[in-house]
Amino acid sequence: MKLNERGLLIVLSGPSGVGKGTVRKALFEMEGHDLVYSTSMTTRPPREGEAEGVDYYFVSKEEFEERIKNDAFLEWAQFVGHYYGTPRDKVEEQLKLGKEVVLEIEVQGALQVREKTSDAVFVFIAPPNKESLYRRLLRRGTESNEVIQKRMDKAQREFPLAHKYDYIVVNDEVTNAADRILAIIRAEHAKTERSIHKYNQLLEVIENE
Amino acid sequence: MKLNERGLLIVLSGPSGVGKGTVRKALFEMEGHDLVYSTSMTTRPPREGEAEGVDYYFVSKEEFEERIKNDAFLEWAQFVGHYYGTPRDKVEEQLKLGKEVVLEIEVQGALQVREKTSDAVFVFIAPPNKESLYRRLLRRGTESNEVIQKRMDKAQREFPLAHKYDYIVVNDEVTNAADRILAIIRAEHAKTERSIHKYNQLLEVIENE
Repeated sequence: MKLNERGLLIVLSGPSGVGKGTVRKALFEMEGHDLVYSTSMTTRPPREGEAEGVDYYFVSKEEFEERIKNDAFLEWAQFVGHYYGTPRDKVEEQLKLGKEVVLEIEVQGALQVREKTSDAVFVFIAPPNKESLYRRLLRRGTESNEVIQKRMDKAQREFPLAHKYDYIVVNDEVTNAADRILAIIRAEHAKTERSIHKYNQLLEVIENE
Repeated sequence: MKLNERGLLIVLSGPSGVGKGTVRKALFEMEGHDLVYSTSMTTRPPREGEAEGVDYYFVSKEEFEERIKNDAFLEWAQFVGHYYGTPRDKVEEQLKLGKEVVLEIEVQGALQVREKTSDAVFVFIAPPNKESLYRRLLRRGTESNEVIQKRMDKAQREFPLAHKYDYIVVNDEVTNAADRILAIIRAEHAKTERSIHKYNQLLEVIENE
């Protein structure tokens, strides 16, 4: 029996190049969870094969800006002329269904979500050391030295922001990291602040403190 | 890699008859942990087959009272004329070795530990409902109705104390409950407050906040 039926909002983030996407994929491949991935909204036109509501919610620039005005995003950013954002209502819908909603986002986006939510769980995915992160950035052969240098600088600026998160999960091995995140989700549901109300109802405890 | 090498002090507690001992046993039978059980100190004379330092640390009344004066117990109580307590130094020794030290104690003892420690993890083991707890108490055929009634009354007084704990774990099935406790231990190690210092060292982050 789950004491708390509402799902958790889990924000996975971490420095540039740490392997957030790989950890998130491994997490979704594990058993025994009810995770959904939050679909972003964008003003970028759909590419061939991309489906509305699956890859993105595609909207016009006007609609996106209207939503910004209405504080309808948990986080948003502009990137090469297009908007990208996490629509608050879609996330809320899933949480109410008891789904654990996973956001895999950049550090700056995560800090925006931190300011707009009160009960999300923030996980900072950390490299076991600096060298392993640099090696990972270099291994992506497709990028120029200049791009790699920029990403290294970005990671360097993101390292000190770990203290703003609830948990630090070291990505030493992808399945280990995913396993730890699942443990965090289970533990968070058992937290007294999340489960006490339901517990009191079940055991007919009169709350007077 | 564990970011934090110090072990955790885990206090398992819950109302009379909830099955704390059974959950603790199941927990110790699980794989992938480094748990040790804290040995209590007592003034009761050893029974046949009981070994010093394994079943209990056996001490004189004078020595126990001297230790109470020196605040050398995490919790202690008197029971049918004998003292029982958890020696603080023995627990500390194990924590320093990186062991997770498990105390399985009564609610009143747990609240004493709460006041004497700052970083222990308190888990309240809860019955899925009142009836299942009463049924469990009745099933122990060896006790008189009067004793059973007293234990029910005790449990009733303990139900409202769950809110003083960090986590509530429902003992719906023993292995589920043990599994959730293992998840809590893993998650607690990943908590930023426990791991940030080591993380900052590893990534050479200069702490200035």
